Amino acid sequence: MRIDGRRIGQLRPIAMETNYVKHAEGSVFITVGDTKVICTASIEERVPPFMRGEGKGWITAEYSMLPRATEQRTIREAARGKISGRTMEIQRLIGRALRAVVDLKALGERTIWIDCDVIQADGGTRTAAITGAFVALVQAIETLNQEKELQTFPIKDFLAATSVGIVNEHGTVLDLNYEEDRNALVDMNIVMTGAGEFVELQGTGEESTFSYTQLQELVNLAQEGINTIFDIQRQVLGEIGNKIAEQKNR
Amino acid sequence: MRIDGRRIGQLRPIAMETNYVKHAEGSVFITVGDTKVICTASIEERVPPFMRGEGKGWITAEYSMLPRATEQRTIREAARGKISGRTMEIQRLIGRALRAVVDLKALGERTIWIDCDVIQADGGTRTAAITGAFVALVQAIETLNQEKELQTFPIKDFLAATSVGIVNEHGTVLDLNYEEDRNALVDMNIVMTGAGEFVELQGTGEESTFSYTQLQELVNLAQEGINTIFDIQRQVLGEIGNKIAEQKNR
Amino acid sequence: MRIDGRRIGQLRPIAMETNYVKHAEGSVFITVGDTKVICTASIEERVPPFMRGEGKGWITAEYSMLPRATEQRTIREAARGKISGRTMEIQRLIGRALRAVVDLKALGERTIWIDCDVIQADGGTRTAAITGAFVALVQAIETLNQEKELQTFPIKDFLAATSVGIVNEHGTVLDLNYEEDRNALVDMNIVMTGAGEFVELQGTGEESTFSYTQLQELVNLAQEGINTIFDIQRQVLGEIGNKIAEQKNR
Amino acid sequence: MRIDGRRIGQLRPIAMETNYVKHAEGSVFITVGDTKVICTASIEERVPPFMRGEGKGWITAEYSMLPRATEQRTIREAARGKISGRTMEIQRLIGRALRAVVDLKALGERTIWIDCDVIQADGGTRTAAITGAFVALVQAIETLNQEKELQTFPIKDFLAATSVGIVNEHGTVLDLNYEEDRNALVDMNIVMTGAGEFVELQGTGEESTFSYTQLQELVNLAQEGINTIFDIQRQVLGEIGNKIAEQKNR
Amino acid sequence: MRIDGRRIGQLRPIAMETNYVKHAEGSVFITVGDTKVICTASIEERVPPFMRGEGKGWITAEYSMLPRATEQRTIREAARGKISGRTMEIQRLIGRALRAVVDLKALGERTIWIDCDVIQADGGTRTAAITGAFVALVQAIETLNQEKELQTFPIKDFLAATSVGIVNEHGTVLDLNYEEDRNALVDMNIVMTGAGEFVELQGTGEESTFSYTQLQELVNLAQEGINTIFDIQRQVLGEIGNKIAEQKNR
Amino acid sequence: MRIDGRRIGQLRPIAMETNYVKHAEGSVFITVGDTKVICTASIEERVPPFMRGEGKGWITAEYSMLPRATEQRTIREAARGKISGRTMEIQRLIGRALRAVVDLKALGERTIWIDCDVIQADGGTRTAAITGAFVALVQAIETLNQEKELQTFPIKDFLAATSVGIVNEHGTVLDLNYEEDRNALVDMNIVMTGAGEFVELQGTGEESTFSYTQLQELVNLAQEGINTIFDIQRQVLGEIGNKIAEQKNR
Repeated sequence: MRIDGRRIGQLRPIAMETNYVKHAEGSVFITVGDTKVICTASIEERVPPFMRGEGKGWITAEYSMLPRATEQRTIREAARGKISGRTMEIQRLIGRALRAVVDLKALGERTIWIDCDVIQADGGTRTAAITGAFVALVQAIETLNQEKELQTFPIKDFLAATSVGIVNEHGTVLDLNYEEDRNALVDMNIVMTGAGEFVELQGTGEESTFSYTQLQELVNLAQEGINTIFDIQRQVLGEIGNKIAEQKNR
Repeated sequence: MRIDGRRIGQLRPIAMETNYVKHAEGSVFITVGDTKVICTASIEERVPPFMRGEGKGWITAEYSMLPRATEQRTIREAARGKISGRTMEIQRLIGRALRAVVDLKALGERTIWIDCDVIQADGGTRTAAITGAFVALVQAIETLNQEKELQTFPIKDFLAATSVGIVNEHGTVLDLNYEEDRNALVDMNIVMTGAGEFVELQGTGEESTFSYTQLQELVNLAQEGINTIFDIQRQVLGEIGNKIAEQKNR
Repeated sequence: MRIDGRRIGQLRPIAMETNYVKHAEGSVFITVGDTKVICTASIEERVPPFMRGEGKGWITAEYSMLPRATEQRTIREAARGKISGRTMEIQRLIGRALRAVVDLKALGERTIWIDCDVIQADGGTRTAAITGAFVALVQAIETLNQEKELQTFPIKDFLAATSVGIVNEHGTVLDLNYEEDRNALVDMNIVMTGAGEFVELQGTGEESTFSYTQLQELVNLAQEGINTIFDIQRQVLGEIGNKIAEQKNR
Repeated sequence: MRIDGRRIGQLRPIAMETNYVKHAEGSVFITVGDTKVICTASIEERVPPFMRGEGKGWITAEYSMLPRATEQRTIREAARGKISGRTMEIQRLIGRALRAVVDLKALGERTIWIDCDVIQADGGTRTAAITGAFVALVQAIETLNQEKELQTFPIKDFLAATSVGIVNEHGTVLDLNYEEDRNALVDMNIVMTGAGEFVELQGTGEESTFSYTQLQELVNLAQEGINTIFDIQRQVLGEIGNKIAEQKNR
Repeated sequence: MRIDGRRIGQLRPIAMETNYVKHAEGSVFITVGDTKVICTASIEERVPPFMRGEGKGWITAEYSMLPRATEQRTIREAARGKISGRTMEIQRLIGRALRAVVDLKALGERTIWIDCDVIQADGGTRTAAITGAFVALVQAIETLNQEKELQTFPIKDFLAATSVGIVNEHGTVLDLNYEEDRNALVDMNIVMTGAGEFVELQGTGEESTFSYTQLQELVNLAQEGINTIFDIQRQVLGEIGNKIAEQKNR
Repeated sequence: MRIDGRRIGQLRPIAMETNYVKHAEGSVFITVGDTKVICTASIEERVPPFMRGEGKGWITAEYSMLPRATEQRTIREAARGKISGRTMEIQRLIGRALRAVVDLKALGERTIWIDCDVIQADGGTRTAAITGAFVALVQAIETLNQEKELQTFPIKDFLAATSVGIVNEHGTVLDLNYEEDRNALVDMNIVMTGAGEFVELQGTGEESTFSYTQLQELVNLAQEGINTIFDIQRQVLGEIGNKIAEQKNR
């Protein structure tokens, strides 16, 4: 039994409240245990300069934490005047991951801005952000679809993420909370598609290392967890969820 | 009848959910109509360098908006690398206002950081932030009190804020929403104490001006509105609310 | 008697030297007691991007203090790499105030940059800046007028500012110097038009508060002071002063 | 045959010139094909504030590219005033990787700064940087050792890195050059220890995905490549190389 | 005859008003033709970290131009968030030049901050700044002297600067105004001591070059000009001027 | 005999390796004693905004030091977020010097970016950078020439630089190394053309001064040294060197 009573391969409770913010084309308030993230998707009718004229769209993400999302208050990046390396890594990851399941040609020359703001942090904020952002993104794209702005629906498949890791007392565990993450020997974030393919796989030994066998265990555990998350996403998305499931089967 | 159906002197519905964020010593999720702000109060056991050794505490505030709190997505101040003049004005105002009802000596050499993050903006974010931040502040101070860290309770009185303004069709109105604010000829933010004293009064003609008579009307309307807000704060604060009411009468 | 020998409702001596800087379209060296500010008005034949094509002009202001304008040398904002919240507040106030008495349509698509640089500070630098900047602005606009660039004269009325406050020994006083300002319980800056209307009214309790009666006393005192300043502006402006006086009466 | 004539599992030629810069405690000029990186290790006799008094050392890395290391000149990060997300990701990776094979306790309270400056870029700069930086680090630590500053030798094992990827024409390939990397569907950087354990594994689908089978192929190919690199490192390090080989076997 | 009617070796009229700013320990308003600079000297009772404990003082300078000192308004460096290369060059030059005639040991562990703010620019602002700053510096040091803070008077000699240059129509000319400077083929700034020694000599061909003979002509012309400036400085400094003259003869 | 065994008027050994970086249009690795600098020249087919439409080209330079080029590791300017005054001075000097021997009209509307990155520093980095950058520049321009992009060859003459100085034990010396430079009383950098004309001459007393006679000695010594450098440049440039020699004689 883990410190919060979960089994080794058990996710924390996940919930997603959609249409959380009235102005955004898509928005989700996702909770994964005590981790809470607001994800919004905003449509801008142009692409960044380096992509103009290519007839393709773009998806980019920004990530931030409220100062008191954490146990100790953290200084605002706006107050420090620069974005930390950790934030940059995370927002690049979110954008890259989402682009893997979107047909950018079908999106047309527009940008979708994903904003993930962590209200409360208890481990796994980046994977929760990806899972929630996918739903917000789908909703924003559905808005375009309703307005007859798209010829084909650009979402190719589901996308979700979770973390796995190796902790001293339990070995390989799924969906680490902050306390587990802080003490983990190995920490791995995995992003997968509904078809079971990998989009990102980032494993890090924290002043430690891991073997080929452990790599396989970690990956298998993550796959199981993410399959559960796909069910939740599909439920939250309702009709559009079914459409994506069909899309993917083509 | 105003665009959202209110009477001239009518506030929008106000609600405050306390203990909104688990890590913070005090936290409130305040909604004023469609304006939603998370206010947290964080205790730090030291004061800024310029105050060391004076035996007094300090209260400072930071304010920010999520990028999609607004109708059009706004660029993050962290991404731009600097804080806007508007943000600075607002966070200075919040800190100054709160300090007016706190006995900084009684607080002891510690800083309370107030963070106000706007989740959804529909006018009056700075006054909602002050009203909510006061409650979060009281809770953080009560935490200190419970831990026997204080000799006297440092909150001297209630504190709340609202806006008033002059709009073309209606004249003087209370608690402007975004649509009204955008078209207002005169815009005034007023912060008051439970005893009916002014802490801040900022009136601005937007490429317009206002007379002495209009000034009096605006102030009277604000006073009535703020009295209603005090009732809500007192209810939200329960027992501690009563303590402050007594404190104030001394 | 106040520390510098003035009565409660007495302004410090005010002087304005026009055409102080040879390159600027309008320039004034204003002294209010020991407070000295260089105000220049510069014409740029375009408006900021957000206003293009609207057929209207724009007025924007910047404010700064020489490092040794103050008793202790202050670090340059250029050296620190960012502008302080106080500076931002002040320059936004100056710009907003001036725009209230200018017909931006009549100005045409051009920007007037107001620069207020404090050479010596002894309290009331922002109100001195507004009073002086108004004169520099009028002169810059008169330059345009002489060059037949304008169809109607865009200045609608006089504009001036002063401070009032509550100090322990004297109660309500007019035009606070630095020593008085530092110890004031309440500090209020008021900007008015020649017609006696308010443009800005910013009252702040410094860890203190003020009553409705005190608000009225402060406002009355400011009105008297500003009327005296209008006389000085009119004298300094000579012929153009008369033109504005007529303009205002239409 | 790949565009540069290599087989699928063939590394580019690797060379390391040690003592490249006279001032640094350790320095290596590493070339991997046309990729050229200067790696230096600098000893500082203190640790960052957050580690003081823990009796442990620290290793931190910085990475940069000369403007004309690339086909098109890139703007200097110093000129832009901020470090890009890509640079941050890479320098965090290098530092983390090196710390995995160093006994920080045995290092004592000192920091080793690793600087990796890319003179010429042709793909794989971050993995070349890790491979070269390890050798520079060992030399800097040997300097400490010679000066009798250490009780035990803190290097626990060899460390090297390479990239693998999936490209359209060839499937899985080892050690991608820039041209291959630019067109790769999947890109993976792997850091391993001499004992065959993983330190970092970062696989990314570039608007693409990869299967479990492909993951295994990629990892196997990387393992073979890195084993070759260990031989080169051991040769370059000579006597100290033998010492690490023994250390590792304990 | 030059464009402003001067002879080739003729300086523009120079005037210095001392005690220009009430707060500063030393202050001068220098005018050289239409170039006007406020120079202040401020005493701080400590030295920068890199000099602590050496028993020596430090002199450092900052330089800035009011936005409308120039024909076209220039953007404030504070607004741009960084100091230009030109400004840095000039402020380093001013500080270095002044340190050449001060016995830093005799000054004791304190810093003198020199601030040179250009109110109106018409060429030669950096040399006017040095000439004026020297006088402000002497006055600040005399203040220390009067307060019995110094054992020996630390000013070793007079210091002044001027510019010379080569212009198409006239060849070598002294003390270039803006119009001449803009068209000069060669531009040289020279700082000298009362003893006729060089402190700085910076000659630059502006997309042009100069011969050994021209170098000698330029230097001779500058020497004559600076001698005239020393007379003005001595007159302005009165009694203290005599003291420096004696100091120098020892 | 100087600390490194040289005579007073003796240069350190100079070598230049051309085509050092494969991507750049021109590149040189220059060593002057233990000072080592990579100089590249990159062609961009446009000019900065302020020069557009004038039919002229532009040459601009950037300079940087690797962190461990120096005895003590220096913090990266990218990490500090701003460029130091020293760096700015140097890069402005390099650009200005090179422009003096280039016919910008003949270059056409294109920019040549010069990058000088110091790999190892032992005094005289800026003069080595100029000497090496000239050769890289010539090669980049020869590339344009080979591609028939130019009507006339825009290099008007050779250009090289060295330092001279006054040190306590030896008086006037040529080409100071770091140890000598650190202790020099006077430090002078001189840039000259093949025709023996001065482009830049910057002499600085470091808390010291120099006489007219010393100025002449310094200049004479520099002239001799630079003549030797021209011979090396001509040899390195081969055929193109001859072309420049002829160009210059026209």
